Amino acid sequence: MAESEKAVVLLSGGLDSSTVLKIAQAKHSEVYALSFRYGQRHSVELDCAKRVADSAQVAKHVILDIDLRQFGGSALTDDIDVPKDRSDADMADEIPITYVPARNTIFLSFGLAWAEVLKADDIYVGVNAVDYSGYPDCRPEFIAAFEAMANLATKESVEGRSHIKIHTPLIDLTKEEIIRQGLAMGVDYSLTSSCYDPADDGNPCRACDSCLLRQKGFSEAGVADPLIDKFSSK
Amino acid sequence: MAESEKAVVLLSGGLDSSTVLKIAQAKHSEVYALSFRYGQRHSVELDCAKRVADSAQVAKHVILDIDLRQFGGSALTDDIDVPKDRSDADMADEIPITYVPARNTIFLSFGLAWAEVLKADDIYVGVNAVDYSGYPDCRPEFIAAFEAMANLATKESVEGRSHIKIHTPLIDLTKEEIIRQGLAMGVDYSLTSSCYDPADDGNPCRACDSCLLRQKGFSEAGVADPLIDKFSSK
Repeated sequence: MAESEKAVVLLSGGLDSSTVLKIAQAKHSEVYALSFRYGQRHSVELDCAKRVADSAQVAKHVILDIDLRQFGGSALTDDIDVPKDRSDADMADEIPITYVPARNTIFLSFGLAWAEVLKADDIYVGVNAVDYSGYPDCRPEFIAAFEAMANLATKESVEGRSHIKIHTPLIDLTKEEIIRQGLAMGVDYSLTSSCYDPADDGNPCRACDSCLLRQKGFSEAGVADPLIDKFSSK
Repeated sequence: MAESEKAVVLLSGGLDSSTVLKIAQAKHSEVYALSFRYGQRHSVELDCAKRVADSAQVAKHVILDIDLRQFGGSALTDDIDVPKDRSDADMADEIPITYVPARNTIFLSFGLAWAEVLKADDIYVGVNAVDYSGYPDCRPEFIAAFEAMANLATKESVEGRSHIKIHTPLIDLTKEEIIRQGLAMGVDYSLTSSCYDPADDGNPCRACDSCLLRQKGFSEAGVADPLIDKFSSK
């Protein structure tokens, strides 16, 4: 199936989604970026999303307000401490408290809504099932089930056309491979943020699971993280 | 499978979802009602949702703000006129402009998020595949696909437990049957609103598809609509 001209990309402002944005732009002439103010405890991520979207000159960047704090239940949206300095074994052991219930389901649902309005068939999301935190909604089987549901949710699906495609170009890549691919495509990782608990100026904590995975990725790729460089040289 | 104590009900404040709330309360001791301020052009629906939730003494009623106007594409969220006085044939003919892309997908996704936080397994939604407006996301096959996806989206699903159940107790009922069942259970339909385009005081237009379907339902049930009575006696 030929790719449509338009695509919607879920953009958190992190390393993964910023790489996915570049990948989508290589395949589609009009890329729409969608971010969420969902009750995160800091605005660093969204500031990065704005910079990444501007730098990539997307067709449009929408930041939707959805207040998941009304439900609570996660260290990212509730008054619970983000775990720090966990070992690889600890990280692999169980789903961490940073998991936000149904977050990807909600994000992809909004992506689907926008795609249907735009008449775009392609939705990109930077989920990853290798160097990740064990979130259920990053698994390939979840994505496949979402795509099947989406293809029964739209107007066009009533006519029997399975037109929606959920693209997860990073799903089988290690963090190292993602970084190598992104650098080859010209992603400026100094614009991105991965930290669950950054300082107000965006300086990453370097101790949460997400910082540790990012560190490992850059280290294995044999490249310095330009975000760390930026703050070290200050 | 035994029903869990808790359930989440999507409550629009309309006739259908208010009936579903009563049905859920007959089966679950703690019922949580979820409504959305999604960019509707009027607040009548949400005022009704509040009154219905209060009257039913739900465990908690949350109204989430999600601004679907940023995407546009529907008469309910965009500056497009709501069609009036359409014939049955016209209504059956095509999906109307009042369709909001991916609305039920989004609503159910938030229902799933709240259910997971609450540790509730049961989510109720008043979709109807008989006397409805041809919306794709009211079809049984869509609901089944959403449930399958939901059972791959949660923490518990990682352990292989298919615990989420999407209940659609009205899906095969005519409007007449819904009204009969609701009246038998004591639903006060004077608290509800079905109109796509009501006056500021809640007086229904009596000409949009939703008003016409409601009129037909009460007429076939051989009962006067207490909402119409309320405004006639003013």
